[in-house]
Amino acid sequence: MVTGSRREMLGAMGAGMMLASTRSSSAVRPGGKIGYAIVGLGYYATRQIMPNFTGCDHARIVALVSGTPAKLEQYGTEYGIPRTHRYSYADFDRIRDNPDIDAVYIVLPNSMHAEYSIRAAQAGKHVMCEKPMATSVKECEAMIAACRKAGKKLMIGYRSRFEPYNRLAIELARGGHVGPTRMITAEHGFPIKPDQWRLDRPLSGGGSMMDIGIYSLNATRYLTGEEPVEVSAIESTDRSDPRFKTVEDRISFLLRFPSGIVANCISSYSSGHNRYRIAGTQGWIEMEPATSYTGQTMMIRRDNATTPRTVPVPTKNQFAGQLDHLAECILRDETPIVAGEEGLADLRVIEAIYKSAAERTSIRINA
Amino acid sequence: MVTGSRREMLGAMGAGMMLASTRSSSAVRPGGKIGYAIVGLGYYATRQIMPNFTGCDHARIVALVSGTPAKLEQYGTEYGIPRTHRYSYADFDRIRDNPDIDAVYIVLPNSMHAEYSIRAAQAGKHVMCEKPMATSVKECEAMIAACRKAGKKLMIGYRSRFEPYNRLAIELARGGHVGPTRMITAEHGFPIKPDQWRLDRPLSGGGSMMDIGIYSLNATRYLTGEEPVEVSAIESTDRSDPRFKTVEDRISFLLRFPSGIVANCISSYSSGHNRYRIAGTQGWIEMEPATSYTGQTMMIRRDNATTPRTVPVPTKNQFAGQLDHLAECILRDETPIVAGEEGLADLRVIEAIYKSAAERTSIRINA
Repeated sequence: MVTGSRREMLGAMGAGMMLASTRSSSAVRPGGKIGYAIVGLGYYATRQIMPNFTGCDHARIVALVSGTPAKLEQYGTEYGIPRTHRYSYADFDRIRDNPDIDAVYIVLPNSMHAEYSIRAAQAGKHVMCEKPMATSVKECEAMIAACRKAGKKLMIGYRSRFEPYNRLAIELARGGHVGPTRMITAEHGFPIKPDQWRLDRPLSGGGSMMDIGIYSLNATRYLTGEEPVEVSAIESTDRSDPRFKTVEDRISFLLRFPSGIVANCISSYSSGHNRYRIAGTQGWIEMEPATSYTGQTMMIRRDNATTPRTVPVPTKNQFAGQLDHLAECILRDETPIVAGEEGLADLRVIEAIYKSAAERTSIRINA
Repeated sequence: MVTGSRREMLGAMGAGMMLASTRSSSAVRPGGKIGYAIVGLGYYATRQIMPNFTGCDHARIVALVSGTPAKLEQYGTEYGIPRTHRYSYADFDRIRDNPDIDAVYIVLPNSMHAEYSIRAAQAGKHVMCEKPMATSVKECEAMIAACRKAGKKLMIGYRSRFEPYNRLAIELARGGHVGPTRMITAEHGFPIKPDQWRLDRPLSGGGSMMDIGIYSLNATRYLTGEEPVEVSAIESTDRSDPRFKTVEDRISFLLRFPSGIVANCISSYSSGHNRYRIAGTQGWIEMEPATSYTGQTMMIRRDNATTPRTVPVPTKNQFAGQLDHLAECILRDETPIVAGEEGLADLRVIEAIYKSAAERTSIRINA
């Protein structure tokens, strides 16, 4: 991918992929759907998340939160949300009094994730929060504690875990389809356009790593099922570029895992990347694009032949799968497969990556 | 590439690629060819180098050096080399008295490169030496000094520089075909078989890095035309594996270049890799395989389309091109494009890679 924007990088690359629901919860709450309040009406919320509720079996939009009255009016009308269910940030805590709202989906700039997740839990609502979960380990821990105290679910928006090619890659990699995994390469990036909150550290908490690089990191963790024990990183940022006054451009990082697997990862705001490859002793599994909204393509090298591998089209795409998963966990009182601890684990590594790049030394973690 | 041996990894993947000679030296020495003594009759010498003299315009085999009399007999007969031109290592210095020998090609285990290159120069012969040039910067410097003192050429066997797809990749990358380069990935490895000199540190001087990883490193240098200024590496070796008692298995390394380019590199003795990708601001150029004996394949991503790029079949392959290059440099008294300084530059980075992995810190070099 070499396009000029984040949305194109992750966006429409083919027909929508659908994910079969692995279980039905209709026995739990017949006919009922979990009501979500969407918190933040930016591009990702309005163009990717909200349209995908139509594919959900267990989730629906019941409320909107935005600081822009015109957006509340526009999307409120479009989605049939009554004025009583439209909130400003000043009004946010009043969601407590709205029994139609079961959960919130936090789609705000990164630095606001912790505050609004915690306030939502305190208002008695379950929480879906976009990734990165927050801008520090400390914030992640506070979010987990707040949700635990309130007895509410906390899930992070790792949509690739609900995308069938990524699920297959996990199964093949961990199952030794090309022999035990020895190396992983994971590369994510796009040339970022200027003038957006992602380039403003007080809002983003960091540059490419906090935005697109987390896909590389998270992939190495779900493909191995292990937590890295050593991190080494090098950053490259042209501070004279107006885009990179406060955040990093490129950061490359190496991860060593307990089994000996090494991952070579890229995070870039100045070149296009969206792929990973798992190299085992007998071949490799490659995905390119790997974590886009649609269009995942898998190639497998084994027995001296390289062949494409396709997956039957599921009935539910990764967005609907993600939204329904929290709903089902609420209905069944189960823990999401990407709970707050998953977001915390990524932030723990991200902090080590930044520290390694800054101190020019490798960092031991998860010891 | 996921095959089980080094020769398969680098070996026959298609029809032989030919490289057009860029100049003719017939005016310099009409009808004459530079005479090479092949020093070391192992697999690479006998199966790759020697058969390719038939494609040379300016080079021929005139002598053989081996510690194994049966090999001298076999290949002496096959190549019509008289007994007077067959040498044991004890006899090596007698090449001084053989005016048919203009140059030697050192194809010995790595730790013997320095000694035999220096003795060849002292015997008044030009030197072609396989890569890695030697096992330390110090040895490389001694080799360069010895050849300079003797007034003899010194060239390192970087055959990819005479392979047309790699030459095109250099031209495209440095010419900004996909915008200025921002990231490079370079990956080389194969699952090594046990019981060979490459796994014996006193002979090899190191593991995968000294054998196959040097292709990743050298590619980043020729694709950028820059020398790295910072190195960070992580090693992963299972010392209980009998193959890795004295040398490393995997070593991943990050390189930062003066222009800001970052390279993510793999060197592996337990998984198959042979590719590189140059990512610019507007797309990427990929080669896979990249540095094999034959079969190079190039794909280019630009303007949201990925297309293969082919090169007309040249009349001379990379092996003959390399052999003829030193011959032409001798005939014209010119400096090889991959002189001793090129081998030294790689060893300088390799020493930093090993140091970074051992000390768990990034290493500044070429400052």
